[in-house]
Formats: sequence, C-alpha cells, structure tokens
Amino acid sequence: MFTALPFTFQYCGLECYAIPISGLITIVIGGLMFLLNKKSSKNIGKREGFIIVTFTWLLISLFGALPYYISGTIPSFSDAFFETISGFTTTGATILTDIEAMPKDLLYWRSLTHWLGGMGIIVFTVAILPILGIGGMQLFMAEMPGITYDKLHPRITATAKRLWGIYVLLTVLQTLLLWAGEMDFFDAINHAYATMATGGFSTRNASIAAFSPYSQYVIIIFMILAGTNFTLHYFALHGKIARVFKDEEYRGYIAIIGIITFIITIGLLIVGNTHPETAFRDALFTVTSILTTTGFATANYLMWPAILWMLIFMLMFIGGSAGSTGGGMKIIRQMLLIKNSWMELKRAIHPNAVLPVRFNKKSVSQDTIYKVMAFFLMYVLIFSMGMIALSALGLDFQTAVGASIASLGNIGPGIGNVGPVDNYAFMPLGAKWLLAFMMLMGRLEIFTVLILFSPQFWKR
Amino acid sequence: MFTALPFTFQYCGLECYAIPISGLITIVIGGLMFLLNKKSSKNIGKREGFIIVTFTWLLISLFGALPYYISGTIPSFSDAFFETISGFTTTGATILTDIEAMPKDLLYWRSLTHWLGGMGIIVFTVAILPILGIGGMQLFMAEMPGITYDKLHPRITATAKRLWGIYVLLTVLQTLLLWAGEMDFFDAINHAYATMATGGFSTRNASIAAFSPYSQYVIIIFMILAGTNFTLHYFALHGKIARVFKDEEYRGYIAIIGIITFIITIGLLIVGNTHPETAFRDALFTVTSILTTTGFATANYLMWPAILWMLIFMLMFIGGSAGSTGGGMKIIRQMLLIKNSWMELKRAIHPNAVLPVRFNKKSVSQDTIYKVMAFFLMYVLIFSMGMIALSALGLDFQTAVGASIASLGNIGPGIGNVGPVDNYAFMPLGAKWLLAFMMLMGRLEIFTVLILFSPQFWKR
Repeated sequence: MFTALPFTFQYCGLECYAIPISGLITIVIGGLMFLLNKKSSKNIGKREGFIIVTFTWLLISLFGALPYYISGTIPSFSDAFFETISGFTTTGATILTDIEAMPKDLLYWRSLTHWLGGMGIIVFTVAILPILGIGGMQLFMAEMPGITYDKLHPRITATAKRLWGIYVLLTVLQTLLLWAGEMDFFDAINHAYATMATGGFSTRNASIAAFSPYSQYVIIIFMILAGTNFTLHYFALHGKIARVFKDEEYRGYIAIIGIITFIITIGLLIVGNTHPETAFRDALFTVTSILTTTGFATANYLMWPAILWMLIFMLMFIGGSAGSTGGGMKIIRQMLLIKNSWMELKRAIHPNAVLPVRFNKKSVSQDTIYKVMAFFLMYVLIFSMGMIALSALGLDFQTAVGASIASLGNIGPGIGNVGPVDNYAFMPLGAKWLLAFMMLMGRLEIFTVLILFSPQFWKR
Repeated sequence: MFTALPFTFQYCGLECYAIPISGLITIVIGGLMFLLNKKSSKNIGKREGFIIVTFTWLLISLFGALPYYISGTIPSFSDAFFETISGFTTTGATILTDIEAMPKDLLYWRSLTHWLGGMGIIVFTVAILPILGIGGMQLFMAEMPGITYDKLHPRITATAKRLWGIYVLLTVLQTLLLWAGEMDFFDAINHAYATMATGGFSTRNASIAAFSPYSQYVIIIFMILAGTNFTLHYFALHGKIARVFKDEEYRGYIAIIGIITFIITIGLLIVGNTHPETAFRDALFTVTSILTTTGFATANYLMWPAILWMLIFMLMFIGGSAGSTGGGMKIIRQMLLIKNSWMELKRAIHPNAVLPVRFNKKSVSQDTIYKVMAFFLMYVLIFSMGMIALSALGLDFQTAVGASIASLGNIGPGIGNVGPVDNYAFMPLGAKWLLAFMMLMGRLEIFTVLILFSPQFWKR
C-alpha cells in the first residue's frame, strides 16, 4: 500500500491525508492483531487456508475502503467498500459517476487495488487452489516445471515469484508502451495496472474510448496477455513458443476471440456506416475485454443489434484462461464440459467402452471432470440465486441478469442498466452488498468462500 | 387417431373431410412402409431404439399436421407442424391467434395430440429410458414392483399397461368433474386431455381464465396429479398412501408448490387490491401450471411485479416429477444436483471420506450423479444455444430467453413476447422450426435426439 505514497504525493490535493491516515489505522490494527495472535499455534492446515484466503480479501477490502471514506470522496462506507472489493477482486464495477472528479492519489489507489488483487490471484492459483483441489483447477498447473504437490512449500514460493516476475515485467512493458502514445505517465501506469489484473477501472469517464486507436491496440494486446495462463508466458520467455501454441486452452482462447470478433465486425459493418477499421477495433476490443473479464469499454455494445451483444453476453459465462488473472468460469472448464458432453453421446452408444475426455493429449480423470461439473453447477446456482435476489431488490430482468454475471464473473459491465457506459451508483444498498459478496465468491472459485457457511466446516 | 371420429362428426363443419382424408393418407403411406419393410430383420437393438423413438414423434407430428393443413384452418404447413409437434410433445405452445374460430373436430384433434403424446411419454419413460440409461432416469423406477432391467420385455408391457390404466382413469375422472361444473362435455374432455398430458392447449382464447373457480380448482388438482410420478399413483391405488408421502421427490414437489404459491399470494395481496381467494387461486394455478409444464393460464403473470414472475421463470427450469407426463429437467434431478453441491462442500473439507448423496434413504451412485450432471449441462447448453439462435433470428432478449426455455421445457408460455396471453404466430419461420426441434429434444430427454447427430452412431 505504501509503495504508492511517494509517487502519489505529487498529485495530492485537499484530501491529501486520507491515504496516510488509512495506512496508519491499518498498521495499528494489523499490529495489534499480530501481537495478540503471536502465541497461537503455527499449524496452518487446509481449514485455516480457506479462512485465511477469504478473510484476506474481505479485510483488505474493508481497510482498503478507508481512503475513499476518510477523504469524503465516497461518502457512503458501503459504496467505498463496493469500490474497493470491486478493485481487489479485479472486477472493475464502479459506483463513481464522475471518475475524473476524483483526486489523483485516490485514482491511483483505485488502480492499485486491481494490481494487488491480481498479484493475490496469482499466488492463490499457484499455491492454494491445487491444495484445496477445487473445481478441477489442479489440472492446468501439472505441467509447470517445479510443481509437485506432495512437497509443496519451497517450490511454490519459487513458482509464485517467477509468475510475479512476469506480471511485473508485463506491467512495466505496458506502462512504457502506453506512455509512448498520447497518455501521460499517470494514465499509462493506471491503465497498465487495470489491464494486467483484468480489472477494468479507468481514470476516464469514457473509459478507453477517451484514447487513441494506438493505445486501444496496446491495451487489447495486454488484455490478451493478462487473460493467458501465466505458465505459458514462462514457457514463451524460455523460448518454448511452440509449446504455447500447442496448448489446447490457449488455442481455444485465441479461437473464441478470433471467431466472435469476426462475426461482430461483419455485423457492425452490415448495420452501420462505420469505418471497417473502427468496426474491427471495437469488436476486438469488446470481445477481449469481456472474455478476459477486464471490462474496459470503447463502444457501448448494448447499442449493437441484439444478436451481437448476445454474443458478448455469452462470453461473460466463459471467462479467462486458468492460471491467468482473468475471472469467470475459465476457458479450460468450458472446453472440458463441452468435450465431455460430446463424449457422453459416444458413451450412450457404447456404454461399456472406456471413453475418457482428452486434453492436451492426456486423459482427464473422471474425478476431474466431475469436479469441473460440480463447479459449473454451483456457479449457475449462485448466478440464478443472485439474479432472483437482485430482482427482489427491485432491479428489472436484464439488469438483474447482467449485474449477477458481471459481478460473479468479475467482469464489471453487464447488460441492462449496468452496461459498459453505466455504473452501479443507482443500485439499492442491499444489491451493492450482495454484488460485493458475489465478486468475492467468483474471484475465489466459489467453494473457498461457500465452504465457510457449511456447519461441518466449523465442527472440531 | 380414429377413435376420435365418431365423436367429432357431431361438431363437423365445412372442413369436415380433413380428418378422414388425413387418416387415409397416413394409412396408405404407413401400409406401404410396413409392406416394404416386412422382410427386414426383427433384431431391434439399442441403436434402433433411439431412431424409432425420435422418428415416431417426428412422423406422427408430420402426419398429424395434415388435418390442419388440408382443412385450410392453418394455411402454412410449418405452422401446422409447429402446432402438432407442440401437441405431441405436450408443450402447448400455439400459433393460433383465435382458437375459438377453429372447427370443433380440429380442436378435438388438437387436444388429442396432447393426450396421445402423454401416453407415449409414459411408455417412453417406463420402457425406453431405463434401457438407454439416459440422464440418471433409471433411478426413479427402481422401486416400482415388477421392474427388473435384466429381464425386461414381459414386465415392461405389464407396467406400461398399469400406468396407462391410471392415466385413462384420471382422465375420465377429470372429464366428469369438469362436466359437473359449467363446462359442456366437449370442453371437459378437451381440457382433461390437455391437463393429464401436462399439455396446455385450451379450447378458449382466454385459456382457463374463461372458466369458473370450481373448474380452475379441478384443473389445479389434476395438474398436480399429472405432474406426479405415476408409480406413486399406483402405490396410492393399492392403499400405500404412506409410501407416497415418504417419497422425497413428491415431498420436494409439494414443498415447491406450497412455498412459491405462498410467496406469490402474499406478493399479490401487497401490490393489488385483489380478493385474497383470487390472489391465492391465481398464484396456485400459475405455479402448478408452470412447474408441471402444463402452461394453462388464468392470469398474466408478466403483469405481476418483476420478482413474482421471476419466481415463475425460475420454476420453468425445474419441471415435473420423473415418471410423470411433465417435462423440464425434472424435480428429482434438481434435488440431486442441489444435494450433491452441498455434499461437495463437505467433500472439500474431508477429501478422503466417502460421502454419497442419499435419496429416499438410499445412497445414489456417483455414476448416477455424474449422468444427472451431464444431462443438466447439455440442457443448459441447448437452452443457451437456442437463446442465441433465436436472437439471431431477430427476437429480443427476454423473448429469446422465454421461448427457448418454454419450448425446451415443454411448457408453452414463457416470458417477453411469448407470455401467457401471447402466442407464437409472430415468430419468424426459422424460429418456429428451431422451437419445434427444441420441443422434441426436451421431450425425449435430449440425448435420445442428439445422439442421432453423432457420426459415431451411424458407424457400423
């Protein structure tokens, strides 16, 4: 949190002391908690793992909301909390109606919540998910050199550091490339933070529509990189480019972007007198932004013909690659589910044959498929319950559907009244807390959070 | 088809010869096909089973459309086919804008398609599904006396006959009860056909709103009976009432009806100055009609507050009981999925414990749960693809969502422009054929139809 301070001071206005005061409060309370718990057991097991992960995201969001609240720029604490958890979960849904009116140090803090959240997600994916064995996510890391799950601790630290290195490297690279365009350094670094975390907070009211095609293309490229499994970047950096393109999830990812962009470009050219390059850029930008769950906008896709934004809506249920900072259900899960459904037809014809799903030329165990299915079901269940609850709170059908998936999938913009040019300020209080909770569940692969509500969990 | 003739003649108008001519065409073509195939092998295996079931529903719908088409009452053959397959799949979606203008013999034929479709579904459920082992449906019949799947043939015939007996008995009973009210015999028998098949075609433009509260309550009771597992009726008729109320699916079914009716009744009383009895009756009727996938209407639920019709919308994804004439995903599947999701949380805490899902006090095998999940996934996939395709054909979001689930779930009315007081006449041609196909898939538990599209299936 404090790495930002020397830098942010130069943009400091009246609300100058909000960040140092928040920092002090956090340090004092954190210090007290540390001292009070010094004597407790150091035996951290699986159960403690679930508690630590969920409460880390909750607590940093509570304390992270202080700068907005103390400065008075977001007068309601609920709103401040919503904005912060939206940041740390890399969702990017905002309650701000005039982003440009915010003091620059708070805007920087806002982007930083994304970037720190993205860092957290990398370590969560590398270190926590495989141990917890949630939703079949152990699968994708198996090929990463240096990861064996029986002897975990020393190697996981090394892997996390490597991936963080890549994350930092790409952030620096994007900052420089954006700075080389028309953006100043402030806009460049903020957008790099928000891109690499697949967050979506911009410093401008018009989001990325405020910037040149050059900047938009740079952001497209880095959104694609951020939505890619980071272990593939690791391979690429070690010269194993062929291995990247052999990866089935990566191929699926690129294929989805390519096909949907193509359809939408053609669609936009048919209906409007847009310049072909603009149509292509808007299509590619929107597809990438939604699929990677970033949520930046250059065009209001809800103004497109229904079939075109329905395709965008469909992308909201896919999400980024496993092992990326992207949210959602993840491409690998959807691919496994579709492959398995297809295999089910074959199994119905040959009930006695052993017909495993194959991914990256390896058989996927029935147990993994089962876990992926259980994850999908839970995801759909929570999406539906969210939708019903939101409509009970007074939202119309499309907005309820849109807000539910946009928060659970950590996307930001949805459909209805929470489209790419709207914000979440108008939401009733209850809806804001519900959506914040859904962001948390979506970001932590659902089970991590939900398990804390099982009475079984708290039994000794 | 001909059992109807002596009866229908008394209502015969100008289009009098449509039914006999259609019958003649069907007999001639059917006879030719029979003669041409006389020499072929009598070895009917599992593969042939899939083909026979799907093509039976397709062919009866093609030939069953002839009376509408020949009589000129439905001038477009696509429309006539839509109306007929909607009948035989017990969906009840109609393209008629003025039902009361139809000749009575054709109205009778229309209701009869429901009733015959319902009969077909009973034998499909008893005889075909357990052999095909689709979507975990073998489960619910296991307790039915006289069913063992290793020695199938003689006992299946006996079981089917028993269940048909119950079906006929309930239809007669309902006809008499409706006739005892203000309905004439024609309306009584037509509505009994449509109720027992969970179809939903009415003889009136206003659907069941045209009739007295007495008739509405009679229909509610018989909708509930039609949506119940018919083996439970068998137990009840043999005095084993306790066994009925011990059945978990039945308890879930009654609980859903009770709880949602209660919420909607309260909701209607809060917003409107409705008489409490009317609010209760409209709520109970609508909940029962949608949950059992009948689709009769006494109230336009889309005029209710959003949260109330969202609850109705949610019911569309549940459906009737397994072993009933009701469509949809079935209550037992949803209950198993929710129980299993809950169990997944426990499994994440205790990964080495064996924690099976229990249903009706018995452990459900992992394989059955897996099949139910695979079914759910396929269902959601087809619903989504249907929605996307319908919006590509020009429908708006809500109508696309509504028409997709209303046809796949064999309900009839949906949301958007296909609500309970609307019809499907305005749909573009492509949408009608797509919806007809979705009705067929939904009615035949998806895999039965889809398997025919697998190249593997046609390999020798």
